Amino acid sequence: MDNIGYYNGVFAPIDELMVPACDRGMYFGDGAYEAIRVEKHVPFAIDEHFDRLYDSLRALRIPFTMPRQELYDILMECARRVDADAIQLYFQVTRGTARRVHAFAPGATPNLMVFAYHYELVDIDVPRKVITLPDQRWDNCWIKSLNLIPGVLASQAALDAGCQDAILHRNGVVTECTAANLLMLKDGVVRTAPADGKIIPGVTRNHFLKLARENGIPVVEEAFTLDEAMEADELLITSTSVHGVRVVEIDGKPVCGRDLALAKRLQTLFRSYFWKSVGQ
Amino acid sequence: MDNIGYYNGVFAPIDELMVPACDRGMYFGDGAYEAIRVEKHVPFAIDEHFDRLYDSLRALRIPFTMPRQELYDILMECARRVDADAIQLYFQVTRGTARRVHAFAPGATPNLMVFAYHYELVDIDVPRKVITLPDQRWDNCWIKSLNLIPGVLASQAALDAGCQDAILHRNGVVTECTAANLLMLKDGVVRTAPADGKIIPGVTRNHFLKLARENGIPVVEEAFTLDEAMEADELLITSTSVHGVRVVEIDGKPVCGRDLALAKRLQTLFRSYFWKSVGQ
Repeated sequence: MDNIGYYNGVFAPIDELMVPACDRGMYFGDGAYEAIRVEKHVPFAIDEHFDRLYDSLRALRIPFTMPRQELYDILMECARRVDADAIQLYFQVTRGTARRVHAFAPGATPNLMVFAYHYELVDIDVPRKVITLPDQRWDNCWIKSLNLIPGVLASQAALDAGCQDAILHRNGVVTECTAANLLMLKDGVVRTAPADGKIIPGVTRNHFLKLARENGIPVVEEAFTLDEAMEADELLITSTSVHGVRVVEIDGKPVCGRDLALAKRLQTLFRSYFWKSVGQ
Repeated sequence: MDNIGYYNGVFAPIDELMVPACDRGMYFGDGAYEAIRVEKHVPFAIDEHFDRLYDSLRALRIPFTMPRQELYDILMECARRVDADAIQLYFQVTRGTARRVHAFAPGATPNLMVFAYHYELVDIDVPRKVITLPDQRWDNCWIKSLNLIPGVLASQAALDAGCQDAILHRNGVVTECTAANLLMLKDGVVRTAPADGKIIPGVTRNHFLKLARENGIPVVEEAFTLDEAMEADELLITSTSVHGVRVVEIDGKPVCGRDLALAKRLQTLFRSYFWKSVGQ
């Protein structure tokens, strides 16, 4: 089977998996999520994703007490059931199952849901066209919550414009993309918005920055503007499955292409680290 | 039975109702909702709630094509199955059921879920203590979306402080409460934040304002500050089930109680209209 779903101990194909209507995820989006890569049944950077999940849950005050080892075992069992080398593992924890009342439901215990499925890494050699949109999200974007309507609308707006992603900005200052971070290369320097709460502190982003520093490439964690993005040497999109894809068009205007060597070097640094981490 | 749930044609007790894990409500909160009162099986202001639901869905670009009469019939069938005179009807429409991809799922059709249950109107003679909190929501609060984590956290923070609600503000300017609007009475004038997109355009709010105007009580739709709220003659909380409950304490300080006559008059104007509308 090329996919499996899991909910509180029950396994079923994703499309057949059922959950209670009273899961607070269903009517409040009251939970947090993570997505990780699993290559030939070996997960990438799972500890970092776990750290972020527990951080998100703490911020949402969701008392998820499952030990990491147990969560790990469930996720790996899901991956084991997928007949594929390239797997995306999505998992979410919601506050619990209860009648709909805004305040926390006393006595409700968190629900764990997992989707594991065959999904190839995004081809880093296919660059992207993007649009720009105001970042209309709430103030705590660092929490990977299930309240994702702004990302849904922005992603669709990009598709409608014949593009593959959108660059979000607050009053002209770039935050990130719809479900990925954005790095700018300019004069040999890697620059990206700081992890100050207004962006997702991306695991892939962090590894790109770490690898750059370790290899003598200067890194500045300082937001850049849309105007600066238009003049960037390169712009790289990073997420769990998007490992530094280049941007070549913004709002219909050709951009970047001025430092392919550095773009390629960063992609290669990350991909080498990635494959080594998963034992390949 | 004192409750019934409904999902795409299937009826079941709310606590037993199951939905697909791939309903986009479950992992994106990708939908909109409404809540209406049904008294002795007669709904209050259902057309206004329908207008707002279809407005929300249009804003979210969810193509819910069910005719109003069909939606009405389903809701009334749910209410009919609840053995109670006082019913709260909650219903939500999500974009559809599909594998998790941010952009709209081509071909997916919207899902309708209903919770109908015995729930008495909130006692308007029991005033509330509230806390104040920064309004951390996104920019489109007029859309009644399922992305409700800010309301969840604010409601719980109020309970933790021994209060029953929270007044939300943006830089000291009051927007509304956690799941209700807030009206200020001062020198005989009713004042409340304008329906400019930053608040829910409450059906009960609108009726309070309309009834005030019709009865010669001046109304100003202009936001007031927290400082002004502290000096208000009265503050009234309005929502579908909260018909003008008074606020008597903000952040531990006694407030209001300076124009009980006008507070009572507005409560009575609304309640009279409400009961007449549902034929009682």
